[in-house]
Amino acid sequence: MKVAEFELRDRDEDYININPLQTAGKTYADTRKAIISYIDGYSVCDWCKGDLCSIEKPPVKKFLEDVSGFLGMDSTILTNGCREAKYSVLHTLTEHGDSVVVDGNKHYTTYVAAERAGLKIYEVKSSGHPEFKIEPEGYAEAFEKVKAETGRLPKVAVLTHVDGSYGNIVDSAKVSGICRDYGVPLLLNTAYSSGRMPVDGKKLGADFIACSCHKSWAAGGGNIGLLATTDEWSDNLFRQSTEYKVKTLEILGCSTRGSSTLALMASYPHVKERVKRWDTEVENARWLVDELERLGLKPLGVQPTEHDLNFVESDVLYEISQTHKKKNFYLYHELKRRGVVGVKAGLTKQFKFSTYGKSREQVEHLAWAFKDIIEKFG
Amino acid sequence: MKVAEFELRDRDEDYININPLQTAGKTYADTRKAIISYIDGYSVCDWCKGDLCSIEKPPVKKFLEDVSGFLGMDSTILTNGCREAKYSVLHTLTEHGDSVVVDGNKHYTTYVAAERAGLKIYEVKSSGHPEFKIEPEGYAEAFEKVKAETGRLPKVAVLTHVDGSYGNIVDSAKVSGICRDYGVPLLLNTAYSSGRMPVDGKKLGADFIACSCHKSWAAGGGNIGLLATTDEWSDNLFRQSTEYKVKTLEILGCSTRGSSTLALMASYPHVKERVKRWDTEVENARWLVDELERLGLKPLGVQPTEHDLNFVESDVLYEISQTHKKKNFYLYHELKRRGVVGVKAGLTKQFKFSTYGKSREQVEHLAWAFKDIIEKFG
Repeated sequence: MKVAEFELRDRDEDYININPLQTAGKTYADTRKAIISYIDGYSVCDWCKGDLCSIEKPPVKKFLEDVSGFLGMDSTILTNGCREAKYSVLHTLTEHGDSVVVDGNKHYTTYVAAERAGLKIYEVKSSGHPEFKIEPEGYAEAFEKVKAETGRLPKVAVLTHVDGSYGNIVDSAKVSGICRDYGVPLLLNTAYSSGRMPVDGKKLGADFIACSCHKSWAAGGGNIGLLATTDEWSDNLFRQSTEYKVKTLEILGCSTRGSSTLALMASYPHVKERVKRWDTEVENARWLVDELERLGLKPLGVQPTEHDLNFVESDVLYEISQTHKKKNFYLYHELKRRGVVGVKAGLTKQFKFSTYGKSREQVEHLAWAFKDIIEKFG
Repeated sequence: MKVAEFELRDRDEDYININPLQTAGKTYADTRKAIISYIDGYSVCDWCKGDLCSIEKPPVKKFLEDVSGFLGMDSTILTNGCREAKYSVLHTLTEHGDSVVVDGNKHYTTYVAAERAGLKIYEVKSSGHPEFKIEPEGYAEAFEKVKAETGRLPKVAVLTHVDGSYGNIVDSAKVSGICRDYGVPLLLNTAYSSGRMPVDGKKLGADFIACSCHKSWAAGGGNIGLLATTDEWSDNLFRQSTEYKVKTLEILGCSTRGSSTLALMASYPHVKERVKRWDTEVENARWLVDELERLGLKPLGVQPTEHDLNFVESDVLYEISQTHKKKNFYLYHELKRRGVVGVKAGLTKQFKFSTYGKSREQVEHLAWAFKDIIEKFG
């Protein structure tokens, strides 16, 4: 069915979607109800007194206070997304020409945000194939290198709590300990952790936490993120305009001034509950990875997997593409015929997937789908 | 009815909403259909090849090409909103400590964006009460002042095409002529013009056009904007990461990575048609302003009004608040009882409103509502 010149989308109703970008962003029924109710432009501003994050009707302010507790931080604001939250931290703490240390498994937006802020970027390399592990000690080495090369320490360090390629969980408390020793503040990118699994900023020692809510907090609609910090940094990070006293500079007064905010607020009670079921999510992921290994696929990243997002090398599926009449697009089509979407069309040699929010029956169906394809064509 | 801990919103279904922030952001039925279909996190990315603005399925790329023609510009990207578009221009063209010239009727976000970019802000004052007119010649004077004080011209000028307080339309072609004479590029803030009325960037001489699509392009959902420019500036403004070649730095790779994009695309055919009916919009606004004047209210801004947004001084309504038992909140309640919302609760002495998209019958109902309140309580 068409609207304007494009087809409507049906994949999350009619298929099991395993695209890691999308599994934990899938909305709940009452989220969709909230979005439709608040859909019109600027409807969140009906009772605004000048600042999005202080709106009391609907209770945005109370929601953000609750989120601060949920994340183990002191204060939180709404942002347009995780990347925008990261840029806000970098833009606040640095000047053009300063240095930043990031991890080798960073999302591209960490790099791009640092580049936009005019920073010199140093990287803590991962251990490479097959584990791609980030060793916390790499941060100390990188700090020393920055100091040796530039004469001073970096202004900030960024760590990807869980990366979007392999689903590795880094020991953030160890990294933050090193950061504290050097006096370098730590920005934790939780795009693939907060909203999916328990995240306690105090325990992890983060000075700043950036969240992706359309990715991992079930807040569909537009794009939306959160930026949380501690009392030590909030005055600076959330500084306001000299001329317009209630307007927070780093979000240009207000960020998500639409129904995305209500979407996030509607999903939040579900999110608070679902992170308690993280063990089950990991169990499901491990079960499927085991099954895929039995079929000849090879998981990358730290094993046994600790996350719903997983990356596999799949020579056995690649071999099939050499003879299948749909060539390298066969896997996409054969999975779709079996009710599964979310593996990027054209990929066969390696791909990533996520089991987040799937029932055990659905995970078993996924194992069956891959097995059936290999048995039929392999 | 409640979702999570907040009430659903009903005002745009059950009332005539005259909030200028919201009248032209009201969605169409097929816009809502598109949003619900694409509501889940990152669903616009199903067929992405690395860059939001180049997505062909759904046809984002084709849409943006069409928009460039519609705005009389050469190329256009999606942004998180108008303020984010303005910041991108300022951040691209300036360095910390540079100067910018803005108009006295600017939206606060123009100031805040310039402040975030670390700029010295010079202002072209309006003529003040009652017209608040911006004279194009003021830009030449401001440029001379900047040159005298800082030794060089400002890096960029910003003009609010139609301001959000009085609905004045500034002679942008004249301003851009002056800018061209001085060699200062012009950023046109069309938050209250493009999407409501015809805007031709070439005729207006704009180097950059910033649009607010949740405000004036009927694109509800999350927040969304557009940033258009000419071939002269596009390489610099839309410059890409050195490391990630398809990622546009000023939108951190991708901006509105959700259903907001589809909402805008669904509303766009309606928007293209409705700007052709701008004369009728102005007629309706003038008719209501005339009726309100007859009731003793006094319109501010250039008269006769040229825009759907109008500001009135209303001593006659203020007088009533002195004796009404609901005090200054009476006007909000009495209007609501008569099916009208959108005048800020608590205001009686002066307020703004918009008739955008209202039928003549609705505009007549608005006149009746004010008349009835004054006759009953005045």
